[in-house]
Amino acid sequence: MSRNHIAVIGAGSWGTALSMVLADNNHNVMLYSKEKKHVEEINEQRTNKDFLPGITIPEKIVATNNVEEALNGTDIVLLVVPTKAIRSVCQQIKNIISKPITIIHASKGIEPGSFKRISEMIVEEVPQNLLGDVVVLSGPSHAEEVSLQQPTTVTSASSNMDAAAMVQRLFMNNYFRVYTNPDVIGVELGGAIKNIIALGAGVSHGLGYGDNAKAALITRGLAEIKRLGAAMGAKKQTFSGLTGVGDLIVTCTSVHSRNFRAGKLIGQGRNFEEVENELGMVVEGIRTTEAAYHLAKSLHVEMPITDAIYNVLFNGKDPKEAVDDLMIRVGKDEANS
Amino acid sequence: MSRNHIAVIGAGSWGTALSMVLADNNHNVMLYSKEKKHVEEINEQRTNKDFLPGITIPEKIVATNNVEEALNGTDIVLLVVPTKAIRSVCQQIKNIISKPITIIHASKGIEPGSFKRISEMIVEEVPQNLLGDVVVLSGPSHAEEVSLQQPTTVTSASSNMDAAAMVQRLFMNNYFRVYTNPDVIGVELGGAIKNIIALGAGVSHGLGYGDNAKAALITRGLAEIKRLGAAMGAKKQTFSGLTGVGDLIVTCTSVHSRNFRAGKLIGQGRNFEEVENELGMVVEGIRTTEAAYHLAKSLHVEMPITDAIYNVLFNGKDPKEAVDDLMIRVGKDEANS
Repeated sequence: MSRNHIAVIGAGSWGTALSMVLADNNHNVMLYSKEKKHVEEINEQRTNKDFLPGITIPEKIVATNNVEEALNGTDIVLLVVPTKAIRSVCQQIKNIISKPITIIHASKGIEPGSFKRISEMIVEEVPQNLLGDVVVLSGPSHAEEVSLQQPTTVTSASSNMDAAAMVQRLFMNNYFRVYTNPDVIGVELGGAIKNIIALGAGVSHGLGYGDNAKAALITRGLAEIKRLGAAMGAKKQTFSGLTGVGDLIVTCTSVHSRNFRAGKLIGQGRNFEEVENELGMVVEGIRTTEAAYHLAKSLHVEMPITDAIYNVLFNGKDPKEAVDDLMIRVGKDEANS
Repeated sequence: MSRNHIAVIGAGSWGTALSMVLADNNHNVMLYSKEKKHVEEINEQRTNKDFLPGITIPEKIVATNNVEEALNGTDIVLLVVPTKAIRSVCQQIKNIISKPITIIHASKGIEPGSFKRISEMIVEEVPQNLLGDVVVLSGPSHAEEVSLQQPTTVTSASSNMDAAAMVQRLFMNNYFRVYTNPDVIGVELGGAIKNIIALGAGVSHGLGYGDNAKAALITRGLAEIKRLGAAMGAKKQTFSGLTGVGDLIVTCTSVHSRNFRAGKLIGQGRNFEEVENELGMVVEGIRTTEAAYHLAKSLHVEMPITDAIYNVLFNGKDPKEAVDDLMIRVGKDEANS
């Protein structure tokens, strides 16, 4: 495909790994980090040790801590920042650009309080005359493995399937396989809400429970995610795909997952403030649990696993009691529960 | 619930663990093994070290190597034998009983050649006047964890939902949670075919690929299992439940799984005869791959992952080439692929 110039906002592990895929596909990448030391490290040493230790960053990636410089000469921006930074980044972007841009985002979360999805926040912040298409890139993908060119599959979702296909062409290569999907709501919800189930799987592991309990939590968790998704307008089928069950599997069964690790510590008796301090990073699943709990209540959707994790996180419920309560609920017909 | 007397045929790890659940629920169990040394070990030492090392077997379980003795005074039989032994066990049973019995089975496989499911084989072998209900018990459940009373969920499926509910009541307790489901075809197929994907996940792991590739294989594998299931009359929804995605997760992500371990060795360059010799046991997934491959061809269902594994197992295709071929297939719309 033709060579593009793309601005990537966010030089954490996932932003850096996606930049490397684009560079491998012969595109030029301007990678924005607000941290001057990361910019210098990337440009001078070709490493990003805090986020992707041991990896060499290709020359086609140029780092900057100036958003205006990152956006110069491009009409495609990839946002890979924490959920809480989405609105402020969009405000910066709209003040710089003068013609419509395509915004791809690869962030996973729901805004606390408003319960908005990422693409909803983008549409609210960037005026219609400056916003081209919005595309979500999501799927089961540890950044570490992508940076090592290990086989990976993701989904490119947009209400405009031409835009989804354009993003598919940008990223697709022999180790990074991209499927398109029109269901933006389902893809965004799956990516965000799976972190709740990952926390739960971690709690179960921290309690000393095994693979059977974890498989039950993931499967029954998927069923309640589908119920919430359907109530919010997503297609149920999307939750059986890469951004649903796929991402759930990789997040719940991997040592890389920070949500799983956080859950494990909670299962061992710590509270969530202690856990975030100990891990030294934001655990999106904690905020997402709060958002999903309130969303489910307002939409009258039954989410027993989310309820249980919410009660452990925010009401001091004993983790063992919460998991055991889930197990002894009255037996049900699988299809109707 | 009332106390029952139940015959369990097959004293491997899963037959023994299920007997222990029944004994915990205060039922009397006659556990049949064809191996005299296992019978003696169970009755005298209260252990079954070959299959569940470290576990003490409760007194309510009495082992026998006489099928007639096992069946004496019961109208409920639980079969937990390899797929290839189902027909001969049914022939033994029908020659002993004189009134209808309920047959529960907890075996996972498809008959080579005929491509029949386990319950179809049972119905063919036991005359209608001697056969009550047939119920399948299946789900994400390592025997080792069940024998340790770790939280586990399974599905009880029968075309007669009263029979499914009876089996639910037999097994249900505070660590073993049973859901009912009317979709026998879906539950049996999910349990059998997941072993193909487990082999594939093992191959990917053996090649040194990571969690992203495994999640992709499981997710896309689930999609092709659903396609085959629908063509065979199963409900697609069943494959999103415990016996579909649940069992797939536990089989593909666990060190306990013999299919995953077999796949890993194949990914490292061994052929399947060498692998079965090395593991010292039958790898059901190898036979199931052959069955599903031919079933898919006859029903005109596209199953690229099953095809790839079939070609590795039976046509000497290089495992790395097979996985890489799967990755570079042309990008598709996720919903329609």
